[in-house]
Amino acid sequence: MNSVPTSELRIDLGERSYDIRIGCGLLSDPASWAGLPRASQALIVSNTTVAPLYAQRLQQALAPHHARVLQVVLPDGEEYKDWATLNSIFNALLANECDRRTVLYALGGGVVGDITGFAAACYMRGVPFVQVPTTLLAQVDSSVGGKTAVNHPRGKNMVGAFYQPQRVICDLDVLDTLPPRELSAGLAEVIKYGPIADLAFLDWIEAHLDALRALDKAALAHAVRRSCEIKAAVVAADERESDLRAILNFGHTFGHAIEAGLGYGQWLHGEGVGCGMVMAAELSARLGLVQADFPRRLRTLVERAGLPVRAPALPMEQWLSLMRLDKKALAGEIRFVLIDGLGKAVQRTAPEALVREVIAACSA
Amino acid sequence: MNSVPTSELRIDLGERSYDIRIGCGLLSDPASWAGLPRASQALIVSNTTVAPLYAQRLQQALAPHHARVLQVVLPDGEEYKDWATLNSIFNALLANECDRRTVLYALGGGVVGDITGFAAACYMRGVPFVQVPTTLLAQVDSSVGGKTAVNHPRGKNMVGAFYQPQRVICDLDVLDTLPPRELSAGLAEVIKYGPIADLAFLDWIEAHLDALRALDKAALAHAVRRSCEIKAAVVAADERESDLRAILNFGHTFGHAIEAGLGYGQWLHGEGVGCGMVMAAELSARLGLVQADFPRRLRTLVERAGLPVRAPALPMEQWLSLMRLDKKALAGEIRFVLIDGLGKAVQRTAPEALVREVIAACSA
Repeated sequence: MNSVPTSELRIDLGERSYDIRIGCGLLSDPASWAGLPRASQALIVSNTTVAPLYAQRLQQALAPHHARVLQVVLPDGEEYKDWATLNSIFNALLANECDRRTVLYALGGGVVGDITGFAAACYMRGVPFVQVPTTLLAQVDSSVGGKTAVNHPRGKNMVGAFYQPQRVICDLDVLDTLPPRELSAGLAEVIKYGPIADLAFLDWIEAHLDALRALDKAALAHAVRRSCEIKAAVVAADERESDLRAILNFGHTFGHAIEAGLGYGQWLHGEGVGCGMVMAAELSARLGLVQADFPRRLRTLVERAGLPVRAPALPMEQWLSLMRLDKKALAGEIRFVLIDGLGKAVQRTAPEALVREVIAACSA
Repeated sequence: MNSVPTSELRIDLGERSYDIRIGCGLLSDPASWAGLPRASQALIVSNTTVAPLYAQRLQQALAPHHARVLQVVLPDGEEYKDWATLNSIFNALLANECDRRTVLYALGGGVVGDITGFAAACYMRGVPFVQVPTTLLAQVDSSVGGKTAVNHPRGKNMVGAFYQPQRVICDLDVLDTLPPRELSAGLAEVIKYGPIADLAFLDWIEAHLDALRALDKAALAHAVRRSCEIKAAVVAADERESDLRAILNFGHTFGHAIEAGLGYGQWLHGEGVGCGMVMAAELSARLGLVQADFPRRLRTLVERAGLPVRAPALPMEQWLSLMRLDKKALAGEIRFVLIDGLGKAVQRTAPEALVREVIAACSA
């Protein structure tokens, strides 16, 4: 039987602490939903792809806990992670006279999680919410740690909040319906944790990549668990990204520029991150922080994961202006997350000439 | 000389603590702006009424502290406290490549303060901001305590955040240019603090109402200081309004319904609160919580402050549906802030028949 025991992991944030449950069959497991905040109303937020697959199952699981479980179904895609979609959640809440105890359940990938979390952060100045990530990317990264946001035409995740969920339910079984392209996108964030924090995990990913792509549950369980452990430790040390937390953005400075530059929804977030990591590794090597074999090693792994390793052709000035708007930038200076010896990330600036070289060398 | 010594008051919220400075000439006093977070960029957010009067003075005062001080001027009025106006702040920040250390300064009344605070809460998931309230209402109430929000067509302040400023600068001299109608609106929030918390203060207001309306600085200084003291104590005890803080909403359940029912901007917020307090006092009396002379006493004072004491004619069902969306409502039950013996407020439900009686008795 392709199943695994359920495990729990705590994100330690004082009064905002919460558990991540990782396992099989969790959507239908009453233990997943016990002990959450009591409220007469709940709202499941999902999208047009995920709702037909899993909303009914979640609705049934929640029925014992809320007198009324509403649903709102968003359009699917990063290009809808905007104010208009966010407002459709507020409209649903207000049309149903939902009060300030209403619990929101984010059933979907990173876009659904980010936008539902931000809606929960803002509705009546804050209602509880639960993350039910249905993509690998959301399970290993975006559902954990409380970063919520919507995009702005000028930059990704520019409007948002740090707002922690009550719980994260990572049901590995829902990954069975994940399109291969989405699985690959999730693997980008799994791979990320190796170079920034855990070289042994990078070795493990290289050894188990085929099992992960074949949706082997034991391999997925380890990948999700180890990714969440690393993320939990970083977030517990620096919840609001005053410094350390930025290392989780390895590959994201270049990646966000690709996403925004092409228009949201062209490349998946994980695709941007995969290619962005190759570029950041290349920059690290050109700065002498790592040996030249590291960008090659990472490129091979990213490619094996089914991800693009060459950036799209964007005008050079657009690259630079998009990256100057990155949230890590300060006083107009772009700051990159770079690898400074395998297993360790640093946040630093780089000479613009070198950045231009890397972009030219890595683009189509 | 119509001036007063500067006083300081601390809002005690752990790592989110901050000072309120109350006095004359504070806009031009370097001490007002010393020791705030350092940042290369700052953005003054004001409106078309206040900016021509005071933005230049603030711009000069901030010049030593930020390499670049930008301005954005919003349209004036509650009807603009919406997402479109909020987004114009994000557009200005992004067009100028403002980073996550950028300090926002809210120069204006309650609308400017609420919307700027919410922009600061959300821009790049949180940047510092300073409240520079220019109306009596903002000085005694809305700039203190970290409630930020925009309105939704279905309800007031429905989308927002609890997000504390770095400091509040209450310059009493700017009240000299306040239109009388706005001054009266502010007096509603001053009057509020008496019945809910401090009967001696209610006596004082009755004795000094003429001095307040004549902009006597000593009287204003005492009114602002005492109002902020009461608010500070309540907010320190219950920052996120799990219970106690709701007493600051005395008059607001009826008042918000008037504001939303007529369309934002028809009645000023303080006008709604003034009339709403008379209605809540009437409901308190009909429930036997206070003697019948209390609503009469409050009506007299509210009227002397230049505020409306009769509610506009709205359909009864609209009253009730608007109040069911009040943020204090739970599971469809409206909860009112009522006076339970002078100087003490309680939050409770009331029989709908009684609520209908009060609305009928108090409306035009």
